Amino acid sequence: MTTDPIESLIRQFSRLPGLGPRSARRVALYLIRERERVMQPLLKGMEEALAKVKTCGTCGNLDTRDPCGVCADPRRDRSTLCVVEDVADLWAIERCHLYRGLYHVLGGTLSAIDGRGPDKLNIAALVARAGAGEVKEVILATNATVEGQTTAHYLTSRLKDFNLSISRLAQGIPIGGELDYLDDGTLGTALKARLPF
Amino acid sequence: MTTDPIESLIRQFSRLPGLGPRSARRVALYLIRERERVMQPLLKGMEEALAKVKTCGTCGNLDTRDPCGVCADPRRDRSTLCVVEDVADLWAIERCHLYRGLYHVLGGTLSAIDGRGPDKLNIAALVARAGAGEVKEVILATNATVEGQTTAHYLTSRLKDFNLSISRLAQGIPIGGELDYLDDGTLGTALKARLPF
Repeated sequence: MTTDPIESLIRQFSRLPGLGPRSARRVALYLIRERERVMQPLLKGMEEALAKVKTCGTCGNLDTRDPCGVCADPRRDRSTLCVVEDVADLWAIERCHLYRGLYHVLGGTLSAIDGRGPDKLNIAALVARAGAGEVKEVILATNATVEGQTTAHYLTSRLKDFNLSISRLAQGIPIGGELDYLDDGTLGTALKARLPF
Repeated sequence: MTTDPIESLIRQFSRLPGLGPRSARRVALYLIRERERVMQPLLKGMEEALAKVKTCGTCGNLDTRDPCGVCADPRRDRSTLCVVEDVADLWAIERCHLYRGLYHVLGGTLSAIDGRGPDKLNIAALVARAGAGEVKEVILATNATVEGQTTAHYLTSRLKDFNLSISRLAQGIPIGGELDYLDDGTLGTALKARLPF
């Protein structure tokens, strides 16, 4: 016999990505049981994130300051722009510690089905940044999905009048990948794009 | 380049049951992005649960009042006590809308490995309730795990001096179960406990 505050907490958790009704119930119950040890600090953490985290006005990253840590870092290479769909993708590229340029977060992909046209994405600002003169290379790091690749193609057409080198991420066998378990598309792409040994 | 409040929020979410570092990052990012629409109401929901939810002093259920809705309901059968490991189990039994008696939440199982003896569980209160005269039947609804069954056996020995009918949940093939996919233990139990057709 669950009553309102518990039920509503479960319902709220079940709306988060990756949580279904069952796991939401488990999380809510755990939080209520571990009130002091887990729920209180989580509440504080959420309040702090709510108060402090801003969207960077330049690239669209999330950070405690605007411009964000990447945009404000004087050691970053301002001539290279890496275009990503989402902040999570930006973080993923940062985690591999190889890229030293700047970013531009689109905020999604073009999608005819969902009615997301170019005006719904952060594209006008990208074109302005890319055409301002400082940028020499644009890396289109959208996902290897139909929408991601469509968006990359669209961006190429929008950026073609500037004197830019436009590149995209290499596609092929993931590190540690076994041929037998790969899908045909990946294997075919890797074969077509084979490199001299 | 994630900074402190985001990182710490991700770390806190990754400690919740069923969430790993990757899904915690996804949840935290989603919350920060959907500040007004999702994070604010979730914060309110957590604060409300924190303020209002209590543990029932009689059975151990979680509810906004003490005694809880089950214990306070005059239509429930006070002569039957269903013993469960956890509040989640109580809710699961309530969801099948078949049981009209009262509950007793143990708060876990006996476990030699984790050093959880009878004094760590809500057993003394169970013995007191069962021996007070009103209770006629005790249903031991602990999980069908080694710990759950050990706990049930221990409880039987503790309750044997009272004039009670003690039962446990039936074991067998789950509804919709296919024989080919069942583990040997379940199938063997179902075979041994076969019923006349």
